[in-house]
Amino acid sequence: MNIDMIRAAAKRIEGHAVRTPMLTSPFIDDIAGRRVLIKPECLQKTGSFKFRGAWSAVSALDQAALDKGVFAFSSGNHAQGVAMAATAHGAKSVILMPSDAPAVKLANTKALGADVITYDREKDDRDAIGEEIAHERGMTLIRPFDEPLVIAGQGTVGLEIAQQAAAMGVTKATVTVCCGGGGLTSGIALALAADAPDMQVRPVEPEGFDDVARSLRAGAIQRNNRTDGSICDAIITPQPGKVTFPILQSHCGDGIVVTEDDCLRTMAIAFERLRIVIEPGGAVGLAAAMLYPDLFEGDAVIAVVSGGNVDAPLFSRALATLQ
Amino acid sequence: MNIDMIRAAAKRIEGHAVRTPMLTSPFIDDIAGRRVLIKPECLQKTGSFKFRGAWSAVSALDQAALDKGVFAFSSGNHAQGVAMAATAHGAKSVILMPSDAPAVKLANTKALGADVITYDREKDDRDAIGEEIAHERGMTLIRPFDEPLVIAGQGTVGLEIAQQAAAMGVTKATVTVCCGGGGLTSGIALALAADAPDMQVRPVEPEGFDDVARSLRAGAIQRNNRTDGSICDAIITPQPGKVTFPILQSHCGDGIVVTEDDCLRTMAIAFERLRIVIEPGGAVGLAAAMLYPDLFEGDAVIAVVSGGNVDAPLFSRALATLQ
Repeated sequence: MNIDMIRAAAKRIEGHAVRTPMLTSPFIDDIAGRRVLIKPECLQKTGSFKFRGAWSAVSALDQAALDKGVFAFSSGNHAQGVAMAATAHGAKSVILMPSDAPAVKLANTKALGADVITYDREKDDRDAIGEEIAHERGMTLIRPFDEPLVIAGQGTVGLEIAQQAAAMGVTKATVTVCCGGGGLTSGIALALAADAPDMQVRPVEPEGFDDVARSLRAGAIQRNNRTDGSICDAIITPQPGKVTFPILQSHCGDGIVVTEDDCLRTMAIAFERLRIVIEPGGAVGLAAAMLYPDLFEGDAVIAVVSGGNVDAPLFSRALATLQ
Repeated sequence: MNIDMIRAAAKRIEGHAVRTPMLTSPFIDDIAGRRVLIKPECLQKTGSFKFRGAWSAVSALDQAALDKGVFAFSSGNHAQGVAMAATAHGAKSVILMPSDAPAVKLANTKALGADVITYDREKDDRDAIGEEIAHERGMTLIRPFDEPLVIAGQGTVGLEIAQQAAAMGVTKATVTVCCGGGGLTSGIALALAADAPDMQVRPVEPEGFDDVARSLRAGAIQRNNRTDGSICDAIITPQPGKVTFPILQSHCGDGIVVTEDDCLRTMAIAFERLRIVIEPGGAVGLAAAMLYPDLFEGDAVIAVVSGGNVDAPLFSRALATLQ
């Protein structure tokens, strides 16, 4: 895993992924007490940064592998990224989703061209189904984060941050990144270590699901007690990855934890001041930048917004926090 | 008014205005029955394209004029654009706003650095107050649309559309533009006539406020019967401008009219599929592209979203249209 892989991924995604802009608002600067630059990956295709990693992985396959197709386990943003990337390459995709996944997510993933196979969380052995697909059908598994080609794709966010921030006069900053398994965070950290060495990445997680913060503190991988029951579902994973964790250890500062209420408030402020739609899990980085200013030093924070796939009732609940 | 003025404005705004991305969604393509590219100026600084025209006009002033300051009549997006552009140039700005303008708009305009002077719509003579400011204080009036430097700034949207669409393989398309006084529409039309001559601009307006569509049909400027009572307030003006109308006549196709319900539905679809916040008036162009496919020929429509300054209750009302 190195910077050359990220630069190669950047070449492969050019013209396919959205080069998301860097947004600012004097009102958000006021709240944070310093300059805040926002990298809104909610504007990415399929509504999250996951499209970058999926495209990076699928576009690296040779024709024989593309002919056999790809598969992924996911009930969320990774599913849509893999489905769309595979379809654009003329490759079949199979997505294994729990049968109790929201109907809209199942429908969206199918609409993007995937064959969706559902399994019963209680009765079925998900990994056994995956084994069958891999060995009998010869399809390539695209892991959601613990896969160098995927990390390389997510790292292209970091290359863009370095370029866009420099063009805005910012070369020294803390970069707050929404962190689940660590694919996005580790990719950005590697890219910035090469292209913007005066920036430091801080992983941000929701309260109660702070496996990365605890793992960094302990110096060894720690697990979450549970992986459900959070409105920040998009960034909840059991534990940091075996590939991602050593990168986080060597390149990132301490983890930061925010509350669900912080996320809702941040979604509302972003609605009002940036005119973007953020999902709760995608808001943790910006929440940290705005609402916990004492955690940072220096003149600028760059907040990465990871995604915007949120349903209308939950978004309306966030808007209700605007008095 | 010519393309060279637009190219000069593009140089002045570079690095100051957001180069908004071009967004797409296969779900929106499905609704429209053809490819739709969306240019989201709701992501522009101050939440609308108006910042471009304001920056273009303010940045063209010499130091003596900047020292005296600028003023504008506006209760909305133009006010915020002028205030922010002036402040960034170290110039004073005075914005004349009706005393019954929403408190949040008054507060936002002040927060961006403007001196806000309110007048009573019933009792005060707005133009007389403007005269006083222009003659006694020597401040420069920045007109909202009927001003070549402002049109040149808005035209930079067209230059970007030509470049971004070509990079996506689209050189022939209809371009639907939200149209009030015609500054944005005429600027884009001039830019595309030079840089993408196979694209045709169609102005789009809300039902009951279709002065541009009627003026184009009549071959002479027609007025709206009223200028209030629409949720599309951001793009309601009494009539097309003296500078803008001849440009619309020589460069645009027929006007298109959509309903307020179309706007609310479009805002909801854009929330779900593009993760952007659109104000009702900013939605008319995308509404036409998605909901009136029979009005267009060809494989692609490019929809310009003009702004995203909408309050939470109205946005929640739009979200409620998602079943």
